[in-house]
Amino acid sequence: MSRPGLILKLSCPDQPGIVAKIASYCAMHRGNLVEFNQFSDQLGAKFFARLEIETSELAVDVQDFIDGFGTLGRSLQAVWHFRRLPYRMRTAVLVTKTDHCLNEILWRTELGELPIEITSIIGNRPHCRGIADHAGIPFHEIDMDGDRRAAGFTAIRRLIEAQDVELIVLARFMQILPDDFCNDYAGRVINIHHSFLPAFIGANPYKQAYERGVKLIGATCHYVTAELDAGPIIEQEVERVHHFHTPADLVRLGRNCERNAIARGIRHHVHDRTIIDGHRAIVFPD
Amino acid sequence: MSRPGLILKLSCPDQPGIVAKIASYCAMHRGNLVEFNQFSDQLGAKFFARLEIETSELAVDVQDFIDGFGTLGRSLQAVWHFRRLPYRMRTAVLVTKTDHCLNEILWRTELGELPIEITSIIGNRPHCRGIADHAGIPFHEIDMDGDRRAAGFTAIRRLIEAQDVELIVLARFMQILPDDFCNDYAGRVINIHHSFLPAFIGANPYKQAYERGVKLIGATCHYVTAELDAGPIIEQEVERVHHFHTPADLVRLGRNCERNAIARGIRHHVHDRTIIDGHRAIVFPD
Amino acid sequence: MSRPGLILKLSCPDQPGIVAKIASYCAMHRGNLVEFNQFSDQLGAKFFARLEIETSELAVDVQDFIDGFGTLGRSLQAVWHFRRLPYRMRTAVLVTKTDHCLNEILWRTELGELPIEITSIIGNRPHCRGIADHAGIPFHEIDMDGDRRAAGFTAIRRLIEAQDVELIVLARFMQILPDDFCNDYAGRVINIHHSFLPAFIGANPYKQAYERGVKLIGATCHYVTAELDAGPIIEQEVERVHHFHTPADLVRLGRNCERNAIARGIRHHVHDRTIIDGHRAIVFPD
Amino acid sequence: MSRPGLILKLSCPDQPGIVAKIASYCAMHRGNLVEFNQFSDQLGAKFFARLEIETSELAVDVQDFIDGFGTLGRSLQAVWHFRRLPYRMRTAVLVTKTDHCLNEILWRTELGELPIEITSIIGNRPHCRGIADHAGIPFHEIDMDGDRRAAGFTAIRRLIEAQDVELIVLARFMQILPDDFCNDYAGRVINIHHSFLPAFIGANPYKQAYERGVKLIGATCHYVTAELDAGPIIEQEVERVHHFHTPADLVRLGRNCERNAIARGIRHHVHDRTIIDGHRAIVFPD
Repeated sequence: MSRPGLILKLSCPDQPGIVAKIASYCAMHRGNLVEFNQFSDQLGAKFFARLEIETSELAVDVQDFIDGFGTLGRSLQAVWHFRRLPYRMRTAVLVTKTDHCLNEILWRTELGELPIEITSIIGNRPHCRGIADHAGIPFHEIDMDGDRRAAGFTAIRRLIEAQDVELIVLARFMQILPDDFCNDYAGRVINIHHSFLPAFIGANPYKQAYERGVKLIGATCHYVTAELDAGPIIEQEVERVHHFHTPADLVRLGRNCERNAIARGIRHHVHDRTIIDGHRAIVFPD
Repeated sequence: MSRPGLILKLSCPDQPGIVAKIASYCAMHRGNLVEFNQFSDQLGAKFFARLEIETSELAVDVQDFIDGFGTLGRSLQAVWHFRRLPYRMRTAVLVTKTDHCLNEILWRTELGELPIEITSIIGNRPHCRGIADHAGIPFHEIDMDGDRRAAGFTAIRRLIEAQDVELIVLARFMQILPDDFCNDYAGRVINIHHSFLPAFIGANPYKQAYERGVKLIGATCHYVTAELDAGPIIEQEVERVHHFHTPADLVRLGRNCERNAIARGIRHHVHDRTIIDGHRAIVFPD
Repeated sequence: MSRPGLILKLSCPDQPGIVAKIASYCAMHRGNLVEFNQFSDQLGAKFFARLEIETSELAVDVQDFIDGFGTLGRSLQAVWHFRRLPYRMRTAVLVTKTDHCLNEILWRTELGELPIEITSIIGNRPHCRGIADHAGIPFHEIDMDGDRRAAGFTAIRRLIEAQDVELIVLARFMQILPDDFCNDYAGRVINIHHSFLPAFIGANPYKQAYERGVKLIGATCHYVTAELDAGPIIEQEVERVHHFHTPADLVRLGRNCERNAIARGIRHHVHDRTIIDGHRAIVFPD
Repeated sequence: MSRPGLILKLSCPDQPGIVAKIASYCAMHRGNLVEFNQFSDQLGAKFFARLEIETSELAVDVQDFIDGFGTLGRSLQAVWHFRRLPYRMRTAVLVTKTDHCLNEILWRTELGELPIEITSIIGNRPHCRGIADHAGIPFHEIDMDGDRRAAGFTAIRRLIEAQDVELIVLARFMQILPDDFCNDYAGRVINIHHSFLPAFIGANPYKQAYERGVKLIGATCHYVTAELDAGPIIEQEVERVHHFHTPADLVRLGRNCERNAIARGIRHHVHDRTIIDGHRAIVFPD
C-alpha cells in the first residue's frame, strides 16, 4: 500500500468480457495490474472486482486515468471507486471504558499494519483518555447519558465532519447508534461484537455464552446497519473454551478474538478489500 | 478403555474433603487411580468428578467395591455411576438420507476409536440400507411420514428397548423427536446439528449461514432435550468460509465439521467423560 | 467442475498487460471468464494465473480456441495447460497397510468432492484389498520386499502407463520412490506425510512428536520429489495435543489431519488450482 | 490466583494411593481442594499433580501445613513445591529491538492476566527504552556486542540476583544464552521462538518458512536449555498462510502467534501449571 498506485473497486451486473475490458483499459494506458481479484456471483449474476494498479509507467495523468474510466464504468452499469496510493484513511475511534481494542488498533497502526490516521478518540466515558494522551491523539469526552444522548450523537457528527473522517470504528463503544446515523454513514462504520454472530446478539454475550455452555466463543467485526448486530460481517474469530471457564475467563479469552477480529476487519476495509453486497460482505484475501 | 477397570462418574454439592474421601475409598480397597478429573464449580457450589480405576489389584470383589461405595456416595448426596471396563456401549444410529455421519461413526468404530456396538441402524428413508448391509448391521426402515409419525416413534422405542440400547445417535436424522421421547431418554440421545449453535437453529442452517454471510461455519454435537437444538453442547467444530463459497460449498465444507463433532461427541459420551449439569455439559478432556 | 468449459493454468515472466491479453483473447472468442485467479510474484518477477472459462457461447470450436492460444502463450514465454470440463482425472492410489486415507479418498470421490476416476489401487501389502473390492476397483498387490523392490516399481510403472494414469496418490504408501520415478512423474505424485513438515521428516513422526513434546501435531500433503519429504507443499493441517496424549493418541488424532490434508490436496490438484514454482506450490483458493 | 491459598506442584514415581494420601493430608488440616489436576504417565511410571488449595479454614498455620507435608513428600520420593497465593512472580524481560512481545506482556499484566511484577526490562539495544519508561519499569541497556558478550551476561546475572528475579523471559532477545546461564537458571527462562518448532530452528525462521513454502506458520514458547531451541515446549500457535504472502507478510502474521504463545506460556508458568519432565513439559489446562 506504500507504493504509488491506484486501487479500483468495482461491482456491476455480470456479463461476459468484463475482465478483458477493465484490464485492457489499464493496459492501454500502461497501468500495471499488480493484483487482480474478481468474483462472479453466479447466484446473484453480479460481478465484483478489486484491482491494484501500479502507476509509475502510466502514459496519462493519474486523474485523467481515473476520469477516463467513467465511460467504461457507466457502460458496465458499475459502481466503482478509485483510491490513490499511498494513503492513510482518516479514522475516528469510539470507545467507552474497555481499552483492549483501542490499544490493538493504536499498536498495529504504529507497526504499520493499518494505514490509518486516527484523527480523534471519542469516549462517552473518560477511561481511555490516558491512552489517547500517550498516543498524542485528541480525546473527546462526550456525555451521552440519559437525555444527552441525541446531543451527544450530534456532537460526534460535527466532529467527524469537521475532521473529514472517512472511517468510524466502534471499539467496544457501548451505545447503540441512531438509525439516521447508521444510514448516513452506511459502509463507513465498523463495529466489533463480542460474540460469534448471529449467536448472542445484544448485551452480555459472554454471559449468554457461558449459560448456553458453548465450546467455542467468538467475536465478529461487521459493518453497522440500523438493525442491531445484523450488518455485513467482515471477519470472525473463535477460541475454544471448556466447562471450567467462568464468565470472567470467557471475557479474558474473548479479548483475543475481539482484538484480532477488529484489527483484521479494519485492515480489510482500509485496504479496500471489502465490497458490501446486501447483507453480505465480499472480502478479497489479504 | 480396554484394560479391566472401572470408571466412576459423580456429582454432588461441593464441600471440603470430597477428593480425599473418594480417593481414600479407592486406595483402601487397592483400586489404583489411573486418571482423576475433578471440577469444582464455584459459581454453582457443585462438585463433579470422573475417575478411572485400575482394578487388577483390587482387594475386594468388583461388585462389592461398587456396592460399598453407596455409603460414601449417599453421605455426599451424590449422583454417581460406575462403569465396568472393558465395555462397548450398545448404540442405535438413526438416519434419514445423508450418510456421511453414519459412515464416520462406522469407520471410527472399526478403527477402535469408539467403544460402541451398533445394534441397529434405523432410517425413515431407505438410503442408508446399503451401508448397513455392508457393515453387517441390521437396517430398519421405519416410515414416519404424515400420520405414521407417532407409530414410527413407537416402533423405534420398541426396537431400542428390545435391543437394550444405551445410546441413541441422531446422525442427520431429519425428524424432530416427540417431547416424551426426549424426556424418557434424557442424557442418552446425541444429535448433530449442522450449525454453530445457538446460531441458525432449525432447518437449512447452511442456507441461513450463506444468507447471513458468516465467515466461519460450524457443527454442534449436543444432547437432545425437548427444546429444539437447545440441549447441552458436547462438542463444536468450525471451518473458515469465504464470499465465493456457495450454499453447496458450505454443505461440503460443513460435512467435515459434522463428522468430527459427532465422532468426538460420541467418544466423550461413551468414555463417560460427560456430565450433564442443567443446560451445560461438563466434558473432561480426552 | 461439472459444466462444460475450460480451465487454463499459466505461468510466465511478469510484464505489464498480461491479464488484458489473456482476458481479451477469451472475450474475443466469447469465452466467458467465470473465475480468474492471478498472482504476480514480485520477488520472483513471475506471473501465474488460473482461469475458468465457460464455453457454451464460444464463437469457435473448443479445440481451435485451445490451439489458437498458442500464439499468445508463446509471445508471453509462458508455460500453460488447458483442461476440458467436465473431466475426471485418472488416478492410481498406492497403499501399504493403513487404510484411512484410502477410505477418505474413496468416500469423497463418491460424494462428488473429488473429480477423479480411480483406475486401480496398488498395495505392497494385501491389507486394503477388501476395501478395493467393495468399491469395485481393481486391487494390485505388488511385492516390493527386499530385492523385489526394483521389479515392483517397474510393475507399477507398467500399470500406470497401461491405464493412462494422470495422478499417483501415495495414501500412506510405506516405500520411498526411486529417484527416476520421482523425476519421470514430477508434479503428478502426491504424498501425505504424517507430520507438520519440515518437522519430523522420515520415519515414525508421531513418535518423534511425542518425544519432542510438541503441543500441535500435523500432516502435510505435498508433491513428491527425489529429496525425501521436501517437495512443494499443497496443504497442511494441525491438531492440538496435550501431555496426556500417548504416541497412540497422536496416531489417532493425526489421522484426522492426514485425511483432511490429503483430500484437500488432491482436490486442489485435480481442480488445477496448483502451480509448482520451484520448491513452493501456488494454490489458488477453493 | 487472587484468593489466599496455596498451589502445590508435585512429581514422583507412580504407585497406588498417591491421590488419597495427598488429598487426605489436605483434608485432615482442613485445606479445601479447589482444583486437583493429576497425570499418571503410564509410559514413564511417573505421577504428576497440581493442587490449588483454599486455606481460609486451615486448622493449622500455613507454614506448618507446608512443613508438615515434608514427611509425606519424602515418603513418596517426590519433588514438590508450594506457592502461597496471592503472589506476583518477580520477572525480568530481556529484549533486543522488536517490541511486540514486550508490549503484549506489559498489556496483559496490566489487564490482570499475568500475575507478575516486572522488575526490569533489559535490552542489548536501546529500542525498547521508551516502552519501559512509559510503563514505569527500569530499563537497563547492556552492551553485548563482540567481546562484551561475556561481561554482558555477567551484568544480567548480577541484576537478576540483586532483584531476586524468579522468571526470565526472552521476549525476542536476539542473543544465545551461554550454557552455564541456561543450566544455572534451568526451568526459569522462557523463550519465544518465531517458528513452529522443531521446524526452522535458528535464525530467520520466517524466511526459511517462506522458502520452504509452508501453508501454516507458527510460534513456540519453550523453556530454555543449553541446546538451541530444543527445550521443553509450553505453548505453540499457528496461522494459515498463502502463496501470495511475502516474507514480510509472514513476519506480520507471525507476530500474532508470537504474542499469544508467549503470553500463554508465561501464564501457564506463573500459575504453576507446568512441570518439566525431561524434554517435555506437562501443562495442566488453564
